[in-house]
Amino acid sequence: MKTVDFFFDLSSPYSYMAATQIDAIAKKTGATVAWKPFVLGAVFKATGNTMPATVAAKAKYMLDDLPRWAHQYGVPFKMTSHFPLNTIKPERLCIFAESQGKSGALALAAFRALWVDDRNITLEPELRALAQSVGLDPDKAIAAIESPEIKDRLRAYTDDAIARGAFGAPAIFVGDQLFWGNDRLHFVEAALKR
Amino acid sequence: MKTVDFFFDLSSPYSYMAATQIDAIAKKTGATVAWKPFVLGAVFKATGNTMPATVAAKAKYMLDDLPRWAHQYGVPFKMTSHFPLNTIKPERLCIFAESQGKSGALALAAFRALWVDDRNITLEPELRALAQSVGLDPDKAIAAIESPEIKDRLRAYTDDAIARGAFGAPAIFVGDQLFWGNDRLHFVEAALKR
Repeated sequence: MKTVDFFFDLSSPYSYMAATQIDAIAKKTGATVAWKPFVLGAVFKATGNTMPATVAAKAKYMLDDLPRWAHQYGVPFKMTSHFPLNTIKPERLCIFAESQGKSGALALAAFRALWVDDRNITLEPELRALAQSVGLDPDKAIAAIESPEIKDRLRAYTDDAIARGAFGAPAIFVGDQLFWGNDRLHFVEAALKR
Repeated sequence: MKTVDFFFDLSSPYSYMAATQIDAIAKKTGATVAWKPFVLGAVFKATGNTMPATVAAKAKYMLDDLPRWAHQYGVPFKMTSHFPLNTIKPERLCIFAESQGKSGALALAAFRALWVDDRNITLEPELRALAQSVGLDPDKAIAAIESPEIKDRLRAYTDDAIARGAFGAPAIFVGDQLFWGNDRLHFVEAALKR
């Protein structure tokens, strides 16, 4: 069975858009999704890339472009009031959820909380609510995201994505083929079908 | 009849990809294409944006991504050996061609010369050959591209695109709606159908 490595940063709205679609693509092609949070700031630093929203005209354009994708996919979207934000903690929570087989469910819940319900997912009460929403123990979850193992794993995912050529988010790999962006999902699907 | 303003820089391979499709989209939707060359360097300077290829990992990725689009569209593509290049002269030639109703034909010929046949389209013999290939008088064309009127017009197109929110290429407008990139043509088509 083929695996698609789905590297995302929760702070990336295009990662949210792609996240709403990736399970359906995997199902259609008989593939498995490996949900891999990474630290986009570290990816930018390592590659010399910059956040799209630092160009004012591009940031303005994204406010038109993102609702077009939401409309195409039939998913809700609301620009967050918390942008930019440091998503390291909720991403560590995704990694904790991984050990319980709930990585994708947690990621989708966190994306929705940030990009639909405008929650500040970096705060402890929100992290607890997210954990609980997918059936994880909130106390264990809060303790786990400060553990060296989970911190290391988020760094390892980030380093792995950079080593494989990622420079932005989402970064989607089928084998050694990189597909960058929500707007390349049709290429991901074609690669999984081959 | 609706018009789609297709702002392009000949040095942009994604502009080439979109250029191969825009006439068919216009035909399907009963729209007219206004082919508008612009100076991408000036757009980047005005908006604080940077050329995608300045990020090495992105430049490497584009060498995989562009052939995927060429395959999807069924069009030839070969990375040019002349990149980056200053396309002001062939873009002025497009504007000269506009007065003869041949702007689109000239642009497509120039795109193909650069992105398929690896010709250095900044050189006078290539400019003459391009003019001739669409039925323009080469002597008149070479004289015209040094005229103040045509220089001004290229600047005016560039300024207009920037004023309307463009920050990269291709920049495609349906009314005041901006669509950025070859990967947004499905949104252009939808806008033209509305």
